[in-house]
Amino acid sequence: MKLGRIVREDLDGTVHRLVAVEPDAERVIDLRTAHRVHLERNGATPSAARRISAAWFPGSMATAIAAGRGLVELAAEVVAAAGDDAAHELAAVTWAAPIDPPVLRDCLVFEQHLRTQFGRADIPVPKQYYRAPVYYKANPTTVVGTDAEIPWPFDSSYMDYELELGFVLGEPALDVTPDEAVQHLFGVTVLNDFSTRDVQSREMSARLGPAKGKDFATALGPWITTADEVDVTALQMLARVNGEQWSKGTSADMMWSPAEIIAYVSQSERTVPGEVIGSGTVGSGSGSDLGRRLSPGDTVELEIEGIGTLRNTLASPGAVRWWPEPKPRPAGDGDA
Amino acid sequence: MKLGRIVREDLDGTVHRLVAVEPDAERVIDLRTAHRVHLERNGATPSAARRISAAWFPGSMATAIAAGRGLVELAAEVVAAAGDDAAHELAAVTWAAPIDPPVLRDCLVFEQHLRTQFGRADIPVPKQYYRAPVYYKANPTTVVGTDAEIPWPFDSSYMDYELELGFVLGEPALDVTPDEAVQHLFGVTVLNDFSTRDVQSREMSARLGPAKGKDFATALGPWITTADEVDVTALQMLARVNGEQWSKGTSADMMWSPAEIIAYVSQSERTVPGEVIGSGTVGSGSGSDLGRRLSPGDTVELEIEGIGTLRNTLASPGAVRWWPEPKPRPAGDGDA
Repeated sequence: MKLGRIVREDLDGTVHRLVAVEPDAERVIDLRTAHRVHLERNGATPSAARRISAAWFPGSMATAIAAGRGLVELAAEVVAAAGDDAAHELAAVTWAAPIDPPVLRDCLVFEQHLRTQFGRADIPVPKQYYRAPVYYKANPTTVVGTDAEIPWPFDSSYMDYELELGFVLGEPALDVTPDEAVQHLFGVTVLNDFSTRDVQSREMSARLGPAKGKDFATALGPWITTADEVDVTALQMLARVNGEQWSKGTSADMMWSPAEIIAYVSQSERTVPGEVIGSGTVGSGSGSDLGRRLSPGDTVELEIEGIGTLRNTLASPGAVRWWPEPKPRPAGDGDA
Repeated sequence: MKLGRIVREDLDGTVHRLVAVEPDAERVIDLRTAHRVHLERNGATPSAARRISAAWFPGSMATAIAAGRGLVELAAEVVAAAGDDAAHELAAVTWAAPIDPPVLRDCLVFEQHLRTQFGRADIPVPKQYYRAPVYYKANPTTVVGTDAEIPWPFDSSYMDYELELGFVLGEPALDVTPDEAVQHLFGVTVLNDFSTRDVQSREMSARLGPAKGKDFATALGPWITTADEVDVTALQMLARVNGEQWSKGTSADMMWSPAEIIAYVSQSERTVPGEVIGSGTVGSGSGSDLGRRLSPGDTVELEIEGIGTLRNTLASPGAVRWWPEPKPRPAGDGDA
């Protein structure tokens, strides 16, 4: 099943609604509506049908996933029973990010990207990448969906995209093995880890990892394909900029499997429903890997087989409002 | 006002309740109860009083803070009107973390700690720390409160504490200046950024920042002191281990002010209500700064003037369940 979120208007403003996506039929099914209609046909009063459908299909996908295995079963049931009464044309909907992750981690498990990036900075590839599926943590509150315009931070002249898989977690996992981890993968989406390379490079010199160079926006979407419908071991991954193909890769090149990644993340640390783990950039999957830069107004499309196409356009650089004045630094500190 | 969260039992299990804390009176006021009683005295039906008090005082402090400036005003009003009817003995309550932050960042704005840590690793202090209040992002879902036992990850033999201020943010901020940022500080709490130094050092060699070395737990508490009640520019900060004083510092030593930190975080990136930003470790505020290590069973107390004492005890090391097998590494990669 393919699950997404769309933006709709009700009497009090905009709301998010969970949808089942049927790309071939070019339609989406509003799951709360379908559930409500189905309940009413089974004798529920309108107000009881509203209450129960709202509890199962809230605006937050992470909250919905927290309900456990019953969610996807129920979604399939209500689509079959009342999908026609809750359908919207695919081309006409306004998308939101398919998931509002409580935590957003991002690995770096494609060796080609790893070697290109460290090679460019003239730093040996750290051993640690071969010891464990290392990750940094992104800002989960600045996630956007397909069609969203991406803000361009004022302090950057080097904007880039990153073509990645996004693994959406389901049931909480703690100290699981890779064999056990498989059942904790709820689904897969496309992830674009937009990055300002100049900002990122400056701030990573402090050795605390990326922050403002990446946290202005992370795109997810267009929807989530549930794990039962997609084999993530060999998916073609493409990036196009203004219609021209820039990147082509395959998920077959992952050094660490999704099961190993989830198992690693779960050691001594409980995962939560709806959290997202990025795979890291596929080989050649960013402008930086290719010696190219994005420009304001560019449209970036990331397409992954079995999922769909995540499309975003870049805004113009923002206006400068404030930036820290450097603090005095002791003499003799060198140039680090 | 001092605001915290306690754990209580209702018919369906444990719930979190927001409380106003009166340390001198040795009591806490359950705010939802006080509000409900106050509403009923003003003619509300019991069910209307339940509904409205639940909306204002949910179990999530971040959700409550999102209601804006009315929250603290209402809390003060209901404590004055019906506090005696909703009071519990301070010594008898079970604490939760005072806040469930949607995002958790942690800076490093105390120069002495910065110099000790980089000096120990024999790395020059990066310039970037003097250019901006640099931070890493922690896992907001593994936050615990005072009295919580801290798990000891199986892969560490070097556990440490970090004595920090935690800045709790209120109204969303985007591209604000330090002058404007002041009004976005909701309150201050004590933060213990528990760290396994051996794990942290290994993983930071990958240059993506701390992750599993710190994300097993972050302690916050015992409660939040609202910004109007505390001047964070010169607070005494103490750490005791098993009753013995290990660390003593002052917030006066911050290189970057809370206003500068919030302004920096807000550039090109909207903050969200209830997010927490750690100050970083005060000078000498960790075992690592002193050449000392914690042991299983140790009790760590962090006390900050004007807030209170955050107390946690360390568990015994966990059992090994699984750990990644290293992947083959190309010859000639060196020892990085």
